[in-house]
Amino acid sequence: MPTALSLITLLTDFGDRDYFVASMKGVILGINPQVQLVDLSHQVSAHDVAEAAYLLKSCYRYFPDGSVHVAVVDPGVGTARRPILASTERYHFIGPDNGLFTHIYAEASQLEVREIENRQYRLDTQGATFDGRDLFAPAAAWLTKRQPTSSFGRVIQDYQRFAIREPHWERQALMGEIVHIDRFGNLISNLTIAHVHEVLSVTKREAPVIRIGAQAIRGLLRSYGQAPSDAIGALINSNGQVEVFCKEGRAADRLGLSRGAVIELT
Amino acid sequence: MPTALSLITLLTDFGDRDYFVASMKGVILGINPQVQLVDLSHQVSAHDVAEAAYLLKSCYRYFPDGSVHVAVVDPGVGTARRPILASTERYHFIGPDNGLFTHIYAEASQLEVREIENRQYRLDTQGATFDGRDLFAPAAAWLTKRQPTSSFGRVIQDYQRFAIREPHWERQALMGEIVHIDRFGNLISNLTIAHVHEVLSVTKREAPVIRIGAQAIRGLLRSYGQAPSDAIGALINSNGQVEVFCKEGRAADRLGLSRGAVIELT
Amino acid sequence: MPTALSLITLLTDFGDRDYFVASMKGVILGINPQVQLVDLSHQVSAHDVAEAAYLLKSCYRYFPDGSVHVAVVDPGVGTARRPILASTERYHFIGPDNGLFTHIYAEASQLEVREIENRQYRLDTQGATFDGRDLFAPAAAWLTKRQPTSSFGRVIQDYQRFAIREPHWERQALMGEIVHIDRFGNLISNLTIAHVHEVLSVTKREAPVIRIGAQAIRGLLRSYGQAPSDAIGALINSNGQVEVFCKEGRAADRLGLSRGAVIELT
Repeated sequence: MPTALSLITLLTDFGDRDYFVASMKGVILGINPQVQLVDLSHQVSAHDVAEAAYLLKSCYRYFPDGSVHVAVVDPGVGTARRPILASTERYHFIGPDNGLFTHIYAEASQLEVREIENRQYRLDTQGATFDGRDLFAPAAAWLTKRQPTSSFGRVIQDYQRFAIREPHWERQALMGEIVHIDRFGNLISNLTIAHVHEVLSVTKREAPVIRIGAQAIRGLLRSYGQAPSDAIGALINSNGQVEVFCKEGRAADRLGLSRGAVIELT
Repeated sequence: MPTALSLITLLTDFGDRDYFVASMKGVILGINPQVQLVDLSHQVSAHDVAEAAYLLKSCYRYFPDGSVHVAVVDPGVGTARRPILASTERYHFIGPDNGLFTHIYAEASQLEVREIENRQYRLDTQGATFDGRDLFAPAAAWLTKRQPTSSFGRVIQDYQRFAIREPHWERQALMGEIVHIDRFGNLISNLTIAHVHEVLSVTKREAPVIRIGAQAIRGLLRSYGQAPSDAIGALINSNGQVEVFCKEGRAADRLGLSRGAVIELT
Repeated sequence: MPTALSLITLLTDFGDRDYFVASMKGVILGINPQVQLVDLSHQVSAHDVAEAAYLLKSCYRYFPDGSVHVAVVDPGVGTARRPILASTERYHFIGPDNGLFTHIYAEASQLEVREIENRQYRLDTQGATFDGRDLFAPAAAWLTKRQPTSSFGRVIQDYQRFAIREPHWERQALMGEIVHIDRFGNLISNLTIAHVHEVLSVTKREAPVIRIGAQAIRGLLRSYGQAPSDAIGALINSNGQVEVFCKEGRAADRLGLSRGAVIELT
């Protein structure tokens, strides 16, 4: 009988210099040696819950059904903030109740959120500063050992989420913002392909105009390769978002923009 | 019949840009495809044996029994320094005999250290500059294939260790030092919860005072979240050590301190 | 029946901050949960095909037979550049047809290169900017599920490769160049042990002289440890290449040299 898949992903702001991530992996493999571990990212800016939520949103759906996504960006560790297990129609999510799973809640068609209360799923250690190792890692490992979600704790309704900033209309323009800058300096916005279609149907134009910083970009390209070498271009990226790029440079640096910058679609 | 766990952790100063770590993993999986590999850290400062020893000490015990911990911070590669296999009641450790396992020796209740002499466990390659790939990786892989430790080489007693710097008393104060600065800029000391109890029993106070740099910190908090936003606080961390932190900043930068700084407990 | 090894390595310029690598891993494990994944490196300089080719060349042969090496450094993603599957006597290589596998082609004794045309091996997603996730990852995963290479697409002969820069003679000296600078600041050249033997047989000397920057180095050491602390030394490294190092420093910084610098062997 083949072992069913037991896949746990890890998303933290622990970096790669310290022993924090390794401690979590050791605890998990001590409980279930059959687990397949995948690092989502450990380079989230320290305590940046919104950035972690964005990274998780951008890739969780590419994992197989039943995967357990553990996210530990947890400035409130050791305080009264609750540890939670959120289960959707396809996945489980484990982490602190601080808004990390805001996008998951918005996208799930089935959702059950429980507070992790069962102390049997905790490591018996001292200190209240490393729930990643002492609480979230063992909870995830026990879940892959087929413990029912009901054994973790009671269902809660008042889980935390932050307001997702959606584009809004100002006269004839849809105003969005930059939500992420990736490794290549590409500026990724909260404007989607649906917003582009909406704008085009309102304006009756054939192609959108994108304004960002001092730049006006006419039309969307299909790939990075279609842009002239040093020009700023825009396209719909692999997650369906409007993305501004510079083929042979870093658009963020070229335009002098950072997360939160305004992007306008007409 | 389920495959028994074969877990190897890797700790090096090889960084993540080069092909060094991947080469080691390729060699291991060529010998035993069933091995589960875990990166402990590859961001140890170049040639910093003490830092690697500290990272290993901080997490090795969270791995399941039988794990093989490979550590390669090896400024003396290719010289007469010996490759060793150290086995304790729970784990195996493989690496150069340069003090990397100093803390392990101090904490083990059973210990057997062998020089790795058996040339059958070496890769047949040219060059004497990459024992990580040519010697330590294959030795670890063969160990997970149930080769007895006695087949690796003879027991030695004169293995290297460095002096572990312990806190000492100066009048009414216990003087410790900062042994690590983590990703968040937290200052971690060699003062432990046992030292705190010792100081309190001597001074008859209810809470300790911690002096570091120009800062005096009264009392220990239970979590990072309990401190005011921009204040310097102290707590007992998840490994039982006195740790100095700044809730919304980097204590190391704020205090202008680095590894080796004095910390005083009264 | 033991599961046959299914090992996929990943080499990209995606870095470790974003969700790109994790997306690829999710896709792979969704198709074949039994795959063992190994990160070769994700810190290739953005769009630097030659650097990625060098890293791959330096370690691919240490992986077990049948491994699938996926390399995605792909400035032409979404353009007409072809996705390819290159199979040698021991390995498979999957990536864009942009020269990434130049060294593999040169070193293979058997070689078959196919364009990946079969759309059944693609993920059904929108966008043309992330073939790593949508095309290369699933193709690699399907290959580990024992799909025959012939099912991927037709054999091509006109695959891309760049000119490998070989050392050349100028009078009595063999002129090479620095092809890589590693984490320790070591300068690695395209001069090999074979070139050293060639030079010695021509010059009738007993030991070579290496000139690099303003430095003349007499003779080759056997290990880093043999050099005086702050001196510049040279040795044959673990891949058979002439490497210039500084025992307690970074040779690249000390000599003020970067990739492409001339190195002369007499």
